[in-house]
Amino acid sequence: MNTALSQLGQRTAPPAISWLMSLTLGQPKLISLAAGFTDNASLPVSEARELLNEILSGPRTGQPALQYGSTAGDALLRELTAKRLTELDENATTAAVCDRRLAPNATKLRRPQPAATDISSDRLLITHGSQQLLYLLTEALCDPGDIVLVEDPTYFVYLGIAQSHGLRCRGVRLLPDGLDLAHLEQVLEELRRRGDLPRVKLLYLVTYYQNPTGYTTSFAKKAAALKLLRRYEKFAGHPLYLIEDAAYRELRFAGEEVPSALAAPGGADRVLYAGTFSKPFATGVRVGFGVLPEPIRTTATRIKGNHDFGTANLLQQLLARALATGAYERHLAELQRRYAHKARVMTDAIRAHFPANVEWREPAGGLYFWARAPKRLRTGAKSKFFQTALKRNVLYVPGALCYANDPTRRQPDHEMRLSYGGASERDLAEGIKRLGTVLSA
Amino acid sequence: MNTALSQLGQRTAPPAISWLMSLTLGQPKLISLAAGFTDNASLPVSEARELLNEILSGPRTGQPALQYGSTAGDALLRELTAKRLTELDENATTAAVCDRRLAPNATKLRRPQPAATDISSDRLLITHGSQQLLYLLTEALCDPGDIVLVEDPTYFVYLGIAQSHGLRCRGVRLLPDGLDLAHLEQVLEELRRRGDLPRVKLLYLVTYYQNPTGYTTSFAKKAAALKLLRRYEKFAGHPLYLIEDAAYRELRFAGEEVPSALAAPGGADRVLYAGTFSKPFATGVRVGFGVLPEPIRTTATRIKGNHDFGTANLLQQLLARALATGAYERHLAELQRRYAHKARVMTDAIRAHFPANVEWREPAGGLYFWARAPKRLRTGAKSKFFQTALKRNVLYVPGALCYANDPTRRQPDHEMRLSYGGASERDLAEGIKRLGTVLSA
Repeated sequence: MNTALSQLGQRTAPPAISWLMSLTLGQPKLISLAAGFTDNASLPVSEARELLNEILSGPRTGQPALQYGSTAGDALLRELTAKRLTELDENATTAAVCDRRLAPNATKLRRPQPAATDISSDRLLITHGSQQLLYLLTEALCDPGDIVLVEDPTYFVYLGIAQSHGLRCRGVRLLPDGLDLAHLEQVLEELRRRGDLPRVKLLYLVTYYQNPTGYTTSFAKKAAALKLLRRYEKFAGHPLYLIEDAAYRELRFAGEEVPSALAAPGGADRVLYAGTFSKPFATGVRVGFGVLPEPIRTTATRIKGNHDFGTANLLQQLLARALATGAYERHLAELQRRYAHKARVMTDAIRAHFPANVEWREPAGGLYFWARAPKRLRTGAKSKFFQTALKRNVLYVPGALCYANDPTRRQPDHEMRLSYGGASERDLAEGIKRLGTVLSA
Repeated sequence: MNTALSQLGQRTAPPAISWLMSLTLGQPKLISLAAGFTDNASLPVSEARELLNEILSGPRTGQPALQYGSTAGDALLRELTAKRLTELDENATTAAVCDRRLAPNATKLRRPQPAATDISSDRLLITHGSQQLLYLLTEALCDPGDIVLVEDPTYFVYLGIAQSHGLRCRGVRLLPDGLDLAHLEQVLEELRRRGDLPRVKLLYLVTYYQNPTGYTTSFAKKAAALKLLRRYEKFAGHPLYLIEDAAYRELRFAGEEVPSALAAPGGADRVLYAGTFSKPFATGVRVGFGVLPEPIRTTATRIKGNHDFGTANLLQQLLARALATGAYERHLAELQRRYAHKARVMTDAIRAHFPANVEWREPAGGLYFWARAPKRLRTGAKSKFFQTALKRNVLYVPGALCYANDPTRRQPDHEMRLSYGGASERDLAEGIKRLGTVLSA
């Protein structure tokens, strides 16, 4: 008998990370530098308790929290989120200059002045984590065979969504200050020549402390990428959107605040901004959001109506109260201090133990280091290096998992994503030390 | 410029119910017999507060609740859910005889003895409400142009999912004890003759206190439907699944417990059981679940990995503790009493105020009455009757919304779904009285 599964059902592969995680089951002493978990000890247990106690102290606020809400999300939460985003972009305005040290070619770019981002709450859609938003946007925009442009490397769960939907991915080289714009232009030009641009729907960027590299895209590059996309729209015959995945934006502990792509010229019409409260507050409270232009917001909201007709109200009320009372802001400041310290611990350990031929860069936020070994050293899951590290009870994410299946270039296989999110400081130092020993051998 | 939207994005229609709800915005005095909301006053505010206080009283239980979990769902919650389902089916076993009064043709059916349903927790998948499960199953099984068989009438949000995915629906007549089996056979036979069976993927049934009719499918009919599907599999060339949507199962306040289709012969292989804790506990705590055979469970879990890599842990821990402590069971008993009473209030009002030519039936659970006016009386949203009711500040769900777009039969337009879920007792009585006046006029 044949399968009853749909094309999508048959295509959807096991998540890249799941077998990696399954490796850890038999090894209780394993030090995982792989998981993107946040730090257990950092979770706001007593804060959440207090906020929920207030919400559930009586029927006036308690009943709405336990009742259905609207598909687009709680009005107060949308308002507070819009206000917060507007403030983040306002605070960033004065610092919107490229860091020349990180991005020597940035001087060639015009310096666009960020526009005032006045985000109205009716552009917002609240989702069950920002992951759900990425899924909804893919459904709203992409048919099987369509093309999405992604960073090389990029967030591997997005690659899973793309794979599942039968999309073709084209990788664009990533530099420490964001996309290699010349390469983006080259890719667009090549797609134009082949007549493939009508199949291109969007460019997906993780703009802040990127997963997996920790790199941040400069505002100038966001603006330039938007301009480039706009230039090629006439060949595509439809809008070319920029998904700005800002999941790690709030986990900034060094450097200046960079404005969102929403503040760039044309950003309000073409940027699909994906944010989240899960990582900066609590990953077990899955609340993300999108800032979306029409007709994308209406379409995504309708699709979400079919998914779940709205994110659990209890979670939304918890976040709304955390934002309104300042508990969110206080917790975030504490989290930023904590991750700054853990990143420093990892930096010190890498300096002390990694050989000089491994390239890396200290992040200014987020949860990740990206380490690049010499090309001859394979780091993939079947490599001798990976297996040796595993024997010494250290797990990392092989860099190859973060590269799209793009037939136009060879998939790099000599990098590692190292997370300081979940492990304790002691384990971070010890894990890096062991990796260093294996690298040096 | 063309649209960048996908086929699905372009197809997805506004939810049938949304404009209905938007009608209520300008009418604060409106009595809504339309909303499927649960009763605000019934929501377990103090119970949820106490449970969350316990969970968040310290890091041991608090941290896991605020951290990521696995995509398939919390192990304890899956175990407690599996145990509960097994018990429900066990308690139902002795009562598995058709009600002859309701279903005169049931005597023609063999009386299958329910098998012991021993549900293992690794068949379970926890979802963000059972709605998400319905969505995941559609994605896993159905391509555009595929055919799904649904009850006539059926749950309109499922029709929204089907419409969005470009599916063709075939309606099967519904009787007070479940599907008209002769009609099911006739539909299958016709599809076979046309060579359409390879496009048929599933039969979708809301088996307990159905939305919108309040009808419950007898166990004998579930078993017979499964057998019939199995018989036609050789023409389809693949398994034909039965989705048993049991969303209202626990809201039983009269009659006997009916075993699930999982307990019928072949049920373990072909039934995709969709359950929820949202309606029996709190709709703002969106936790549903599926009991699924392979390869459907693995496929649905992978797709959920792309949706959100797991339902918010805080919600799952809340439900797990509610189940473990008995708080869930106590709340449910209270809820059943409350709905029994509200259903009685509606029954009394209908008896007193509806003319004799309107057919209806007192439900034994759930949230809905289904009222059938004489065929000449149109009840659709553009009908004079609907508009007159609205002028008198009463809203109901027009029956036509609950019928699939099935070109092989005319869409009935003389029925109403009346919910006693959200409105107060006083409003229920008053709303029915006003409707009765309009009906009699």
